[in-house]
Amino acid sequence: MSGSYCKSLYSFSGDQHQQGLTFEVGEIIRIVHPLPGGWWEGELDGVRGWFPSSYVQVLEKTASMTSLPVEDVGEPLPQHWKCYMSPQGRRYYVNTSSNGKETDIQCLQKVFTPLDFLHILLCYSLNLKWIQLRLFINCVTFPLPMSTPEQQLLKPDEWSYCDYFWTDKKDPQGTSCISGFEVLLQKQLKGKHMQKEMAEFIRERIKIEEEYAKNLAKLSQIPLAGQEEGTLGEAWAQLKKSLADEAEVHLKFSSKLQSEVEKPLLTFRENFKKDMKRFNHHIAELRKQLVGRHSAVEKARKALADRQKDLDVKTQQLEIKLSNKMEEDIKKAQRKSTQAGDDLMRCVDLYNQSQSKWFEEMVTTSLELERLEVERVEMIRQHLCQYTTLRHETDMFNQSTMEPVDQLLQSVDPARDRELWVQEQKTGDIRPVDIEI
Amino acid sequence: MSGSYCKSLYSFSGDQHQQGLTFEVGEIIRIVHPLPGGWWEGELDGVRGWFPSSYVQVLEKTASMTSLPVEDVGEPLPQHWKCYMSPQGRRYYVNTSSNGKETDIQCLQKVFTPLDFLHILLCYSLNLKWIQLRLFINCVTFPLPMSTPEQQLLKPDEWSYCDYFWTDKKDPQGTSCISGFEVLLQKQLKGKHMQKEMAEFIRERIKIEEEYAKNLAKLSQIPLAGQEEGTLGEAWAQLKKSLADEAEVHLKFSSKLQSEVEKPLLTFRENFKKDMKRFNHHIAELRKQLVGRHSAVEKARKALADRQKDLDVKTQQLEIKLSNKMEEDIKKAQRKSTQAGDDLMRCVDLYNQSQSKWFEEMVTTSLELERLEVERVEMIRQHLCQYTTLRHETDMFNQSTMEPVDQLLQSVDPARDRELWVQEQKTGDIRPVDIEI
Repeated sequence: MSGSYCKSLYSFSGDQHQQGLTFEVGEIIRIVHPLPGGWWEGELDGVRGWFPSSYVQVLEKTASMTSLPVEDVGEPLPQHWKCYMSPQGRRYYVNTSSNGKETDIQCLQKVFTPLDFLHILLCYSLNLKWIQLRLFINCVTFPLPMSTPEQQLLKPDEWSYCDYFWTDKKDPQGTSCISGFEVLLQKQLKGKHMQKEMAEFIRERIKIEEEYAKNLAKLSQIPLAGQEEGTLGEAWAQLKKSLADEAEVHLKFSSKLQSEVEKPLLTFRENFKKDMKRFNHHIAELRKQLVGRHSAVEKARKALADRQKDLDVKTQQLEIKLSNKMEEDIKKAQRKSTQAGDDLMRCVDLYNQSQSKWFEEMVTTSLELERLEVERVEMIRQHLCQYTTLRHETDMFNQSTMEPVDQLLQSVDPARDRELWVQEQKTGDIRPVDIEI
Repeated sequence: MSGSYCKSLYSFSGDQHQQGLTFEVGEIIRIVHPLPGGWWEGELDGVRGWFPSSYVQVLEKTASMTSLPVEDVGEPLPQHWKCYMSPQGRRYYVNTSSNGKETDIQCLQKVFTPLDFLHILLCYSLNLKWIQLRLFINCVTFPLPMSTPEQQLLKPDEWSYCDYFWTDKKDPQGTSCISGFEVLLQKQLKGKHMQKEMAEFIRERIKIEEEYAKNLAKLSQIPLAGQEEGTLGEAWAQLKKSLADEAEVHLKFSSKLQSEVEKPLLTFRENFKKDMKRFNHHIAELRKQLVGRHSAVEKARKALADRQKDLDVKTQQLEIKLSNKMEEDIKKAQRKSTQAGDDLMRCVDLYNQSQSKWFEEMVTTSLELERLEVERVEMIRQHLCQYTTLRHETDMFNQSTMEPVDQLLQSVDPARDRELWVQEQKTGDIRPVDIEI
């Protein structure tokens, strides 16, 4: 066991003993000579000394980490922080003084970039394995990043909503934080808004087309050059008529835009608001429950710590003067400590149940939101495709309005026009002759 | 000679002779017995009688026409009118009383439909061949329709202006008549006007296109749904951009319409007005000259008739009492008559020269007008073809504005969009875990 570490369960003052080691609760001590008699020699912060082995918890080999010399850490750590290297070569930063309390946020922000806005807690289990590191972000429990084993994504390679929105996030203003689920909901709301704006855009286009059609139709009715005659007159009349045809084409375009693009875009899925409200309410409810459970856990954890402190005091008193009464007191304190441990266990159970429920709901709902978003994108894509199809059709129909004009222009024949006009307008077909005497 | 006809040169009163025939100047008499002694028997209006052969002019065999019995004419002819059948079977209507004066218009209108508004004159030559029938329409001399030989068109099968605008025509209001040349000029003026109106029409179209383009460009700038993200966002942005492209296409259309259709149509051939004025002035001048010449001919004709009447009187007087003085008088009258005949001949010559000059100018100018009209029609046709070409181009360019939109819509991928969004918006990729005790 020499060379391994232990963690102090209680504080111990070495001043009262020859070569005694002094430490507070929760400090990590390197075991130098673990003598079988119950007194071990240990080293803490470069100082060696003796202490009762019952005051410490041996850290298991599986979790054997190496405390790095300060100069290897790379940058000076804040007070009470230590850097450990895991057997896999990962670095863990541990606040050796926090003792179950929330750590200083600034410190961790420095260390655990890019995880900002964390409330980190060194959580130690009943049997005080310190490696049970957990992050608590707004009462949700996460494994410390880089801890073993790595989490597999629920839906690898899919970039699914259900894998990426568990933690909270600063809002765009950076003043408060919003939950991952709210981010998803906002995406939905924004999606709906975008769709509505697209419909508005199409509506504007419809208006432009209608006005264009109106102007073309009006122009085609103006009797300009209506008296042009012959084949040229026919071609010209057809050219004017083609404007009415064009107008018709654009009117058809605008009416199809309305029925086949604008209207479908406006009918965003029914019950959108109701659904969003329901989703939001459900998840928020579960989060609220989780917060309650979390505070119960905290309370139970504190109660346990108090009981253990009480037990500690009593045990120290026992060392000084032994009496039946004291032994009874210690037993009582041990019972209460055990009871407090049980309480904590129950609270943790309830908390985990809550978190589990929320977890499931989050997965279900985010997958639903994901499905709805896929639907939305597909639906918009489809109707925008319809828009381009209609535009293509319009151009083709427009081209066809020119065909009869082209044909008539091809058959414009000045000689034929002259013939027609002369036949109608001629003043006679006899030619002057001389007077003969 | 029996069975042929003669025409009276002077009036003769049969009352003073046994079985004498009475006739006025210019009557057609059937020769019954042409006795060599100078007294012939003839028949006029069913009455037979004798008259001096020197009072008549025998009508030549070549012009032998048959006077049709009244019942064959089809409809009762007005007083003094007779219907003759030419050897080719054509009917000629002759006013036997007009004697060189203008005939009654109403009468001829009845007969010579569709030749309305004619001034017809039976013109007889110095040797008084009555078949020299001519029409005078506003001082221009025409052969009587249906007279032999038929005129060949100057440009057969071409319906050339130079063949059909020699006579005058009632104007559309029917109140006055306009010359054939004026009809041609009006055609030119109307043609110019039509061309101008076409340019105006194109201008209106340009305005419509410009406004349409302006509206499309404006709409493409409106930031609607500008926050749509991912591949859908790209497709949407391209769709909006395509409106700017469309606007560009329509702007280009309108600017090309202006430079390649409107402007050329507006630049009707230079000097148009000047040319028209020159043509008109020239022809009008020649017509005026013709009128002068014509009245000179009429005057000379009347002088000749007077001289002949004088000669006639003197000759009659000679029959009654012969004297040297009378013979001298007759010789003098015959000289004067011959002089008057020479005068008439000179006037007719001058007239014919004028008419000839006018004729040439009419042919030249009407062919020029015809060429200009062919040019106009060709030029308009060409620019209207340019219009349809531009319209086709516009439709094609418009189609091409849709291509990038179509491509981006094809690559819209909800999964890819989710990936992009999640990468940017994810709140972390660790999943909650249970608190472990």
